[in-house]
Amino acid sequence: MTVYTFLVNKITVGVLGASGYAGREICDLVTRHPCMELVFASANSRAGETIRAAGRSISLIATDEAKLDSAGLIFSALPHGASASWVQAAAAAGAKVVDLSADLRPGSGSTSCNGTTVPYGLTELTRPLLPGADVVANPGCYPTAILIALAPLLARSLTVKGATINVSAASGVTGAGFTPKPELMFAEVAEDFRAYAVGNEHRHLNEMRAVVSEMGGDNDILFTPHLLPVARGILATITVPVKESLAQPLSLWRELYRDEPFIEVSDTMPSLREVVHRNVVRMSVTTAANVRQPTLIIVAAIDNLMKGAAGQAVQNANVMFGLPEIAGLPA
Amino acid sequence: MTVYTFLVNKITVGVLGASGYAGREICDLVTRHPCMELVFASANSRAGETIRAAGRSISLIATDEAKLDSAGLIFSALPHGASASWVQAAAAAGAKVVDLSADLRPGSGSTSCNGTTVPYGLTELTRPLLPGADVVANPGCYPTAILIALAPLLARSLTVKGATINVSAASGVTGAGFTPKPELMFAEVAEDFRAYAVGNEHRHLNEMRAVVSEMGGDNDILFTPHLLPVARGILATITVPVKESLAQPLSLWRELYRDEPFIEVSDTMPSLREVVHRNVVRMSVTTAANVRQPTLIIVAAIDNLMKGAAGQAVQNANVMFGLPEIAGLPA
Amino acid sequence: MTVYTFLVNKITVGVLGASGYAGREICDLVTRHPCMELVFASANSRAGETIRAAGRSISLIATDEAKLDSAGLIFSALPHGASASWVQAAAAAGAKVVDLSADLRPGSGSTSCNGTTVPYGLTELTRPLLPGADVVANPGCYPTAILIALAPLLARSLTVKGATINVSAASGVTGAGFTPKPELMFAEVAEDFRAYAVGNEHRHLNEMRAVVSEMGGDNDILFTPHLLPVARGILATITVPVKESLAQPLSLWRELYRDEPFIEVSDTMPSLREVVHRNVVRMSVTTAANVRQPTLIIVAAIDNLMKGAAGQAVQNANVMFGLPEIAGLPA
Amino acid sequence: MTVYTFLVNKITVGVLGASGYAGREICDLVTRHPCMELVFASANSRAGETIRAAGRSISLIATDEAKLDSAGLIFSALPHGASASWVQAAAAAGAKVVDLSADLRPGSGSTSCNGTTVPYGLTELTRPLLPGADVVANPGCYPTAILIALAPLLARSLTVKGATINVSAASGVTGAGFTPKPELMFAEVAEDFRAYAVGNEHRHLNEMRAVVSEMGGDNDILFTPHLLPVARGILATITVPVKESLAQPLSLWRELYRDEPFIEVSDTMPSLREVVHRNVVRMSVTTAANVRQPTLIIVAAIDNLMKGAAGQAVQNANVMFGLPEIAGLPA
Repeated sequence: MTVYTFLVNKITVGVLGASGYAGREICDLVTRHPCMELVFASANSRAGETIRAAGRSISLIATDEAKLDSAGLIFSALPHGASASWVQAAAAAGAKVVDLSADLRPGSGSTSCNGTTVPYGLTELTRPLLPGADVVANPGCYPTAILIALAPLLARSLTVKGATINVSAASGVTGAGFTPKPELMFAEVAEDFRAYAVGNEHRHLNEMRAVVSEMGGDNDILFTPHLLPVARGILATITVPVKESLAQPLSLWRELYRDEPFIEVSDTMPSLREVVHRNVVRMSVTTAANVRQPTLIIVAAIDNLMKGAAGQAVQNANVMFGLPEIAGLPA
Repeated sequence: MTVYTFLVNKITVGVLGASGYAGREICDLVTRHPCMELVFASANSRAGETIRAAGRSISLIATDEAKLDSAGLIFSALPHGASASWVQAAAAAGAKVVDLSADLRPGSGSTSCNGTTVPYGLTELTRPLLPGADVVANPGCYPTAILIALAPLLARSLTVKGATINVSAASGVTGAGFTPKPELMFAEVAEDFRAYAVGNEHRHLNEMRAVVSEMGGDNDILFTPHLLPVARGILATITVPVKESLAQPLSLWRELYRDEPFIEVSDTMPSLREVVHRNVVRMSVTTAANVRQPTLIIVAAIDNLMKGAAGQAVQNANVMFGLPEIAGLPA
Repeated sequence: MTVYTFLVNKITVGVLGASGYAGREICDLVTRHPCMELVFASANSRAGETIRAAGRSISLIATDEAKLDSAGLIFSALPHGASASWVQAAAAAGAKVVDLSADLRPGSGSTSCNGTTVPYGLTELTRPLLPGADVVANPGCYPTAILIALAPLLARSLTVKGATINVSAASGVTGAGFTPKPELMFAEVAEDFRAYAVGNEHRHLNEMRAVVSEMGGDNDILFTPHLLPVARGILATITVPVKESLAQPLSLWRELYRDEPFIEVSDTMPSLREVVHRNVVRMSVTTAANVRQPTLIIVAAIDNLMKGAAGQAVQNANVMFGLPEIAGLPA
Repeated sequence: MTVYTFLVNKITVGVLGASGYAGREICDLVTRHPCMELVFASANSRAGETIRAAGRSISLIATDEAKLDSAGLIFSALPHGASASWVQAAAAAGAKVVDLSADLRPGSGSTSCNGTTVPYGLTELTRPLLPGADVVANPGCYPTAILIALAPLLARSLTVKGATINVSAASGVTGAGFTPKPELMFAEVAEDFRAYAVGNEHRHLNEMRAVVSEMGGDNDILFTPHLLPVARGILATITVPVKESLAQPLSLWRELYRDEPFIEVSDTMPSLREVVHRNVVRMSVTTAANVRQPTLIIVAAIDNLMKGAAGQAVQNANVMFGLPEIAGLPA
């Protein structure tokens, strides 16, 4: 016989920008979260409409009408560029804030809010910075998968100095947002596959470069994203020139992530089906045969809306508030 | 007013291994071809059954019962390993043969049949070798896209000596064949994406390495294929370290392929929708920004069953028989 | 040896409303048609852009700038309501016109244009009316499948007087048009299925009722359409109370459609894959077991953009101009 | 502040036939269930392999090796015909049993096990019979959606005596099982849609007829299922001739199902996306316009693996054991 007891004082939560895919996912997670209570959800373009989250209807209000001081925790899923000023206002109103936009991330130009440096919320790698923070910058979806995959090599300085890390990644269409566009319609995406932002100029590159550099990597990143005919998920295939061949490359990943509840290091290569609707990064590593330059191939998979956005945002909030890190998150 | 006149003496055609995806596509193309007439289609495992091609029903016979001397042209879509001996028998019976298997391709160990060297049928690059040949080895699907994409660089010796060419490619499920397997069922493939043969050991690598080497390239190839939730199509994203930056990289491709009816060099990056059901390679090229090593990014798309298999096989047969190269092929 | 000779004086063709799915399909068919030549393609909202048809680029002009008298044949794929006045102007300018909108169809309120009654172009059933017509009203996609399926019963007065014919049909998303809407985006449609226009009020009902009535059927139609996660195709499942059980129901269909090149009566039930990209109606019929009221079940499949729109429009034009009915059409 | 306390004595659970889609779903639900503990999972054809459930690996044993007396609750997801004898043995060994096969359902020929009548576990309609039962027959997927949809009419004797109830339904491919077949492969199912078992002879009809009759309905059922290119979900579109028009038809459904946690009566027509991965029946009703015979149109949606199989099985087990009916189930 087992006895479970929970004592919960629910945190009041507001969501800014709740009508997009990430915003709705946050509303869903907050509604299911044992220690959180949704007090408002805003979306200017769809104010007055309702969305469904965890089986309930939620009324969207205009962002201007959000009572920022009514929430102890605010998630901003506002568009890039529009988010920072709202984050600043929310923090000034006394809320802890997780910002899902790129505005305050490394490489964005400024990581400062109300005079304080905003830590980057790639939880497994920056966890100690989060408990004291008023604002946390939630990572982008591609950077989450790619940086978690690279960290074990960078931590040991195993990448070849000056070499290019090649990343070919593919994302489901929710990564492109909820605004209707001809190229995102079913009849255009089904049975199609294409590369985009080809030429190494995707807006996530600054974020990845800044963090790789902070981790001591002297490497270029050559990143080509693709659009998949699936709703959710990112798979990144990464080839990294390394200084020497490793007998057991997987052991580096297992070691660094041994106690992480949301990191899965697998003997077999991951697939989207294994991670969709779960707040995990799942990955595996192998050595490339038949090449002169010792090279590792890492494949990492995430759900772009969970560990790549809303799930990690809640994970960061859990750490900021001292809750169990896994609370309310599907592993 | 225009007057068209065709005088046609139809070539009798047999297809060995007609029940798989490539074999059925050949039957379809042959049935529609203005200068070909299908006289038999074999498939041991499904002998006695019928398949539909171009709206007609075709009865499958056992391969052992095929009258090889009744056909002037035989396509073999038999499995790798099983094909070479049938190709030999068909050629000995007097037919011209296009072998879609890997058995006689460069890098396969032997490219000899009945004492004669078998040319490789990557039509645009090996066209002069085909008219006199009795047997032609039809390229693999991935090699078709990748080698056509790389040829302009290799022809000018622009790749960095010793450097690794990185290829991330994705294929629709018809590339995995028609034999039912749990991992190819709809409920497993839909909404999924995964890498396979990770570690640089795919069986197409020997073919690509042999041809790159013949074209003078001293480069390793690091090739990672992926399985897409689409029926047809291959997209290959290729990054190539080059000796120097090129002001107009696309002009090299335009120049080499200027008069090719089945090669499309495009200003915009290709997608699967643009090539499916067509016998073309469509591609584009750009220079990678933000990397120290000058690098080109090439994206190439084909239909794996058309230019990657049956279409190119018919294209090769057209050249072998002196027919217009485009006859019977959807451009 | 066979000798084929074609003498062709190409018909000049204009397309109004060329940027939607049906309009683009017409441009594609006209470009491939051995006896037609595209002279203009209009689309107000996308004037100045180009579309691809049969591998070529076509520049879209504003509809106001179309020189109606430059074309011997004009297809209007303009929206319902906006089409009739353009059809009238085109006919007045001397062109023969096929109108793909609902404006002049039976049940639309008026089937008159420039003082003449416009025949309905359900080709197999109204063929004799077409050669002398200046304007033909091309049927809707659902009515094409459903009326072709019902005609053999109605022609023999076999339906139960006053009984309800039940039609459950499903269409691919191209049936909903090319205008971006949230509910048509990939991430919303994939893995979904839903009924729409539930309550028997779909706008195609008037058209079906009028034609059923003209064919002598005293029957209500209860029609529920559904949205399928596929790009193209309509499947209609129709249950019809009949006066008596028929020993060989399929023979009625085989008899009526014996010589039709675009009608396939099959022993097995049809599927979308069998008809997509083809200008056919494929169907089968069986008797319902285990019900007291003798009832037939008919299943009919078409490609909504081919036999359901652009293909049938070209088929009608072929008949209007005395061309072979199959010219330029994929069977 | 809220205090939750759970005292749980976990029920030991065995699953027979755990390698199919329904069996794996049960393992997943049991593993997540706060009051259940999985003690064995069997699958003859895949004994020795492992499956993943709720993030854990589960080893499959041969069914012959299952210790039936080690479990207080056994779910049988064995094939039809093979299940009944195992259910009998499991019950004889002292376990409570939920049988997901058709062997003991109404209309199957025998609903008796070890001399006792086995109640039908359409939970919302047969709840009072379940607490005392040793064995419960879990309904089929189609019958679950269709019978729940019809019950409010049948309960009030509103259907026209002798009339045919027309059901057109569509299911995702997991409904066809996990055994690989050519027609279930991705490249065959994607972009396709087809009817099957056409002619009113689907094996679920006996079950539906028996229950409709028990509920007092004197009606024939004309049922045509279709195969959808989605992984999961069933949508049933039902037309029912009724004795008289109802001003507020939806109120009948709202009234009967007012307090049901797993029944959703909606103003808008349901779609698969709204029910997938949830243990609910979601439905709406409207009156058909433009027909002489007063007729209602009901559309009902379920997840075929949840409310249509594993979810309802757990729901029934919850009732049999006196647990909260919603325990462990995703609403």
